[in-house]
Amino acid sequence: MAALDKRTHDRKFVRTFMTTPTAVSDKDDTAEMLRKSIQLRGMQAPDVWVPDNEDATAPNMRDEGAENIAEVLAEGGADFPGEIHPRVVWHRDSPETRYKGFQHMLHIADPENGAVENLDGFVIPEVGDIDDWKKADEFMTIVENEHGLEEGSLAMSVIIESGSAELAMEKLRDEMGKPSNNLQRLFLLVDGEVDYTKDMRAITPTGALPEWKELRHNTSRAASAAGLISVDGPYDDIRDVDGYHERITANNAMGMLGIWSLTPGQVVEANRSPLPPAAGYWIIDADGREVELESQDGVEVYSGDRIELEAEDGGYELEVGGDELFFETEDELREELLDLLDYVPSMDDIVDSMEEFEAAKEAGKGAIAMTQSATVSIDGVEVDIAKDRMWDEATYQALMTPVALFQDVYENRPDQHDDLAELYSEDVVERAMGVGN
Amino acid sequence: MAALDKRTHDRKFVRTFMTTPTAVSDKDDTAEMLRKSIQLRGMQAPDVWVPDNEDATAPNMRDEGAENIAEVLAEGGADFPGEIHPRVVWHRDSPETRYKGFQHMLHIADPENGAVENLDGFVIPEVGDIDDWKKADEFMTIVENEHGLEEGSLAMSVIIESGSAELAMEKLRDEMGKPSNNLQRLFLLVDGEVDYTKDMRAITPTGALPEWKELRHNTSRAASAAGLISVDGPYDDIRDVDGYHERITANNAMGMLGIWSLTPGQVVEANRSPLPPAAGYWIIDADGREVELESQDGVEVYSGDRIELEAEDGGYELEVGGDELFFETEDELREELLDLLDYVPSMDDIVDSMEEFEAAKEAGKGAIAMTQSATVSIDGVEVDIAKDRMWDEATYQALMTPVALFQDVYENRPDQHDDLAELYSEDVVERAMGVGN
Amino acid sequence: MAALDKRTHDRKFVRTFMTTPTAVSDKDDTAEMLRKSIQLRGMQAPDVWVPDNEDATAPNMRDEGAENIAEVLAEGGADFPGEIHPRVVWHRDSPETRYKGFQHMLHIADPENGAVENLDGFVIPEVGDIDDWKKADEFMTIVENEHGLEEGSLAMSVIIESGSAELAMEKLRDEMGKPSNNLQRLFLLVDGEVDYTKDMRAITPTGALPEWKELRHNTSRAASAAGLISVDGPYDDIRDVDGYHERITANNAMGMLGIWSLTPGQVVEANRSPLPPAAGYWIIDADGREVELESQDGVEVYSGDRIELEAEDGGYELEVGGDELFFETEDELREELLDLLDYVPSMDDIVDSMEEFEAAKEAGKGAIAMTQSATVSIDGVEVDIAKDRMWDEATYQALMTPVALFQDVYENRPDQHDDLAELYSEDVVERAMGVGN
Repeated sequence: MAALDKRTHDRKFVRTFMTTPTAVSDKDDTAEMLRKSIQLRGMQAPDVWVPDNEDATAPNMRDEGAENIAEVLAEGGADFPGEIHPRVVWHRDSPETRYKGFQHMLHIADPENGAVENLDGFVIPEVGDIDDWKKADEFMTIVENEHGLEEGSLAMSVIIESGSAELAMEKLRDEMGKPSNNLQRLFLLVDGEVDYTKDMRAITPTGALPEWKELRHNTSRAASAAGLISVDGPYDDIRDVDGYHERITANNAMGMLGIWSLTPGQVVEANRSPLPPAAGYWIIDADGREVELESQDGVEVYSGDRIELEAEDGGYELEVGGDELFFETEDELREELLDLLDYVPSMDDIVDSMEEFEAAKEAGKGAIAMTQSATVSIDGVEVDIAKDRMWDEATYQALMTPVALFQDVYENRPDQHDDLAELYSEDVVERAMGVGN
Repeated sequence: MAALDKRTHDRKFVRTFMTTPTAVSDKDDTAEMLRKSIQLRGMQAPDVWVPDNEDATAPNMRDEGAENIAEVLAEGGADFPGEIHPRVVWHRDSPETRYKGFQHMLHIADPENGAVENLDGFVIPEVGDIDDWKKADEFMTIVENEHGLEEGSLAMSVIIESGSAELAMEKLRDEMGKPSNNLQRLFLLVDGEVDYTKDMRAITPTGALPEWKELRHNTSRAASAAGLISVDGPYDDIRDVDGYHERITANNAMGMLGIWSLTPGQVVEANRSPLPPAAGYWIIDADGREVELESQDGVEVYSGDRIELEAEDGGYELEVGGDELFFETEDELREELLDLLDYVPSMDDIVDSMEEFEAAKEAGKGAIAMTQSATVSIDGVEVDIAKDRMWDEATYQALMTPVALFQDVYENRPDQHDDLAELYSEDVVERAMGVGN
Repeated sequence: MAALDKRTHDRKFVRTFMTTPTAVSDKDDTAEMLRKSIQLRGMQAPDVWVPDNEDATAPNMRDEGAENIAEVLAEGGADFPGEIHPRVVWHRDSPETRYKGFQHMLHIADPENGAVENLDGFVIPEVGDIDDWKKADEFMTIVENEHGLEEGSLAMSVIIESGSAELAMEKLRDEMGKPSNNLQRLFLLVDGEVDYTKDMRAITPTGALPEWKELRHNTSRAASAAGLISVDGPYDDIRDVDGYHERITANNAMGMLGIWSLTPGQVVEANRSPLPPAAGYWIIDADGREVELESQDGVEVYSGDRIELEAEDGGYELEVGGDELFFETEDELREELLDLLDYVPSMDDIVDSMEEFEAAKEAGKGAIAMTQSATVSIDGVEVDIAKDRMWDEATYQALMTPVALFQDVYENRPDQHDDLAELYSEDVVERAMGVGN
C-alpha cells in the first residue's frame, strides 16, 4: 500500500477549483452555465471543476441541479480536460440535508444516467468532526456498492468551514485506513472562509473577511500529513487580479498551492501563478514595500522615489524611507544593497540550477554555491552585485516543488501544452520535464 | 440534547470579564471592593463579574475572601445585571491548591450562606491537560451533590495559561458528554497571557507580553467547536484606551469577542467595542496606516500628510508614502482610490443591508449587490466613488454576527437599554432586534 | 516521578545546537572537522554539539562517520563543556534508513569503543507520526540493553521536518510514560525548516524559506506541555549576523530559546542573544521601525530622520513618518512619546527589580510599581519621561525566565564563567545567581 503521506490520487497537485451553478431558474435551459463551463479548455479550464449543487444554486433548484449534472457530464464530461467533482448539499447539524446530499450522489453516480465514467468524486461542504466525515464516506460507499463501482473509487473532498472540521483534520492519519471506513478516498481539503467566519463568529469593522492564516496553515499541514491536497477558498473581488495573485503567493508559501476560482479569468491567473515566471527579475525592499526592478540593456533599474542613491564626498549616500546612510566604499554600499535585493528565478534559471546540482552530485559533491549576478542602477549610480546561495540535497529537494508541479501539470493537462510552450519555449519545457528523474 | 457546537448557556456572547479582589487587608472592611463592584450597572457593569480569590487576592486573605464572596453575593447578587463567576485557586501541579479551591467552592455554594441563587459558576485557573479539567469538574459535581443542586448547574470556566491547557482544548468535543464527567458545564475559555508567557518560558527584550496570536486563534476555535465562549486575558496598561480598543478589534477578527476588564472604564470600552458604531465612516490606507476620513457637508475629507493628490497636466498625480503615480483619467484615479478606501458601516447601515437582503431572498434572489457611495476629497480634489459588494446567504450569515451579539446583549442586559437607545436611537434598536428572525 | 511539564534533563535550557560533518572525504583525516569542533570552549562551544552523520555527511561516508564519532568522543568527549548528541540517519518512509541508523547507534554506544561515557543521546531526523517516534525509541532501548546501559539513559531528540511530526508533538503528553515505551528519554524538539518546506510543498518566488511561524509556536508549545526543550532550525546566511539575531529575538518571544548554529561565530551570537544585555537602553518606534536611542551624558538621544520634534507657537510639533502632530503642553507631548518609547532592561536592572519585588513580597505587598525614568532628546528638544509598570507575582514569575536561563548556563557551563563575568561584572553575576531561590 502507498504510504499515507504520499499524494495517492492521479493528480499530485491541484491549482484551480472552479465552481458553476447547476441550475439557474431564469434561463430557458437551467443547465446553461454547466454546458458553458464544461467546454472550457487550456489555461481557462480548472484542474478540478465543481458543478456546485450547494451554495451557488438556489435551494429549490437543487433536485433539478442534480439531474443537470448527470445530463451534462454524460454529454460532455469525457472531453473535459480537468477532473470533475460536483458539490452536493451536506450539513453537520442537519440529517435532512445530509440525506438530500446522499440522494443527489445516488442519482449523479447512477450508471443509467451515463455520467459516472466522467465523474471523479464529490465535494462535501459543512462537515463537522471526524465522525461526520465518516457519515459522508459511508454514503459514498453505499453509492459505490449500489451502482457496482469499486469501493473507494469515488474521491471525497471536503470544505473546511467550521472549527470542528479544522480540528478533525488533525485526526486524519489516525482514522484513514481503519477497516470500517474508506477515508482513503479523501482528495482535497478546501477552506471555506465565509462560512468559517460565521462559525467562528468573527467580526471585522468593514465586514471584510479575516485573513485566517492559522486555518490555512493547519489545512496545508493536514494535507501534507495525510497525503491530500489543500485548496484555499473563494476570493470575492473578481476585478482585483493583483489581490488574487498576492493571496496565491501567500498561500504558496504555506504549501497551499490550490485556490478556488469563481470565473475563467481567475482560473487563468490561478493556473499560472504557482508556476515559475518565464523571465527572472530582481526585487528590492523599498522601505517595507517590495518593488520590481526594470531590466534595461542588461542593467536592473530602480526608478521609484523611496530609495535615493548619490555618489558624494568620495563615498555614497543611500536614503531609504527617510533614513540616510553613508558608505565610504563601494564594497560597503554593495553589502547593504545585497540585503535589500533579491532575485526571482525564471523556470529556465531553476532548471539550470537543478541540472548543475545534479551534475555536481554525480561528481561526488554534496553542496555547491549558486551565484546570481547583476548590475543594479539607482538614480544613475550603477553597482555590480552577486548573490550566493549554497545548495545541498535538502535545498535541491525543496526547490524541486515548482518543477514537480510543472511536471504534474504537463502530464495531466495536454490541453495546456501549447500555452506552456508559448510561455516558456519548447526547449525549457523539455528540460524541465527531464530534471529530478 | 442541544448540539455541542451551539452555545448552550444563557448568554450566547460575553463581551466583558471583570475581576475584583475578594479581600483587601488594609481596609476596615476587607470586602469593600466586592461591595463596590457588585453595584455596577449599565455599560460599566461587565457581562461576567469575577470575584477573584486567586491572583488578585493575597494568599493569606483567601479564606476570608471566600467568606466575603458568599456574604456579598447573598446581599447584592440578585440585583447584579451580569452573571457572577468567582475565581477560586487551582493548580495542575499542586494537590494542596486544588483541595483549597474545592473547599472554597463548597463554602461559597453552601445554601446556608445564601449566595448560591446568585452564583452562576466558578472560574478555574492554571488548568493543565484534560484530566486536570476533569478533576475540577468532579469537585463541582460533588459540591452540587452536597448542596442539593442539579448536577451540571454550576458553570465552569477555565483560564488557559499553559501549553498543556492549550492542547487540552482540542479534546473538548471528544470528552464533553462522556458518561463519567459533566464537562458540558463548561462556559468560558479565557486566555491568561502572563502565566502562559511564564509557562512557555518566552522572553522579550522589554519584558512586554508577546502577542500570542496562535493561542488566541486556538482558543477561539476550541470555543467554536465545543459551543463555548472565548475571552482574551487582561490588558495591563489601563491608561491606553486606544491600545485596548485595537486589541479588541484584532480579537474580534479571530472570533474572540470577549476580553478581561480590570476597571469599570475598561468594561465600558469592551462592552461597546464589538458593537457596530452609531455612525458609519470611511477609512483610507495611508501607506500602511489606516486613517479615518472626516465627514464634512457630505464630503469625506482626508487631511493627513501621507497622501497627496493634485490635478495637473490634464490628469492626476497621487503620491502615497513617497511613491508618485500619474493617472490620465478620473476613472483610473477612482480605480486606485477604491483599492485604498473602505467603509465601516454603522448599525443602521448593517440593519438596512440585512433587511434588503431578506427582502431579495423572499423575492427568490440568491445574491444581490450592495453599493456604498461617497464623495472623497484629498487636497481639495473631489472624486465620486462607489464600492460594490455581492451578498449571498453566506455573506448574510457571516455579517449577522454583530447583530446577533447586539440582540443577545439587548435580551440579557436590560440595564443597558438606555445606553443603547442613546447610542443608536430607539428606531435603529427596534429594527436591529427584528432582523434575522 | 517528576511532573511531565517540568524539564527533566540536566539542562533546563539549550541555547545552541551546533552540527559538524562526521567524515569528509577530501581530507587526509576524514574526522578532522570533528576533532576541531570537540575542542571548542567558552562562548564558542554550543550547549549541545551534534556530530552530524546525516545531511552534513555524504551518504557513502556515513559508516566511516559513525566510526569517527566513536573515536573522537572516546578521545576528547570528557573535556567537552556541552552535551554531545550525534545525529544518525532515519526516515519515516524508509526501513532501510531506519535500520542503518540503528546500526550506527549500536556502534557509537558500544562500550568497547570507549565513547559511551561521553555520549548524552542521539538526534533522530525525519520522524513521522508518533508510532515512528516509538520505533526510534525502541531501537535506543535495545541499544541500551545490548550495551548494559540503564533503560532511558540515552536522550532522544527529534527533528520536526514533516507535517506528521508537527502533529505528533501534540500527542506527547498522552504517550510519554506508557509502560511499553521509554519516550521520557525525549529531550529536544528541533525544527528543520528546509525539509519541512519540501514536505509541505511550499513555494516562494525567490526560493527563500517561509517563516513557518505556526510551526515554531507549535514546537515551543509541545516542549512546554511535555517538559522538553525547543530549538529552531539552521539560519543559512552565516554572514547575516543581524538577521540571525532578529530570528533569535522572534523565537524567544515564542518561548523557543534555542537555535541551530552552523559555525562557532553563530554559536557565540546564539549563546549570548537570549541573555539580558549588560547595559540597558531605550528604543523608539520610528514610524514602524524600532530604533535604539544613544546615551550621551545621561540623555537618551534620537538622531534619525524619521521623527522630528520642534518647540514652536508655544507648543510642540512632532512629525513621525510624514504625519504632523501638535501638542500644546509638554505633558501632552510626554504622553505621546511614552507610547513610542520603551526600555530594554540590563541584567543589572532585572536583578534590581527582582530583588525589590522579593523584598516587597516579604513585607506583605502583592503588587508594586516599577518606574524607569529618562531624559530623551529629539532634535535638541529634551523631555523628561517616566514609564511605570505594575509587578505582581505573575509578572515576577514571567520575567524570571531570562534569569533562570542565566542560572542554568552558569551552573552547567563553568567554561563560560569568565565570559559572563567580563560581560556583566562579578557583582551582577553573583546577585543574579541569588534571586528567585
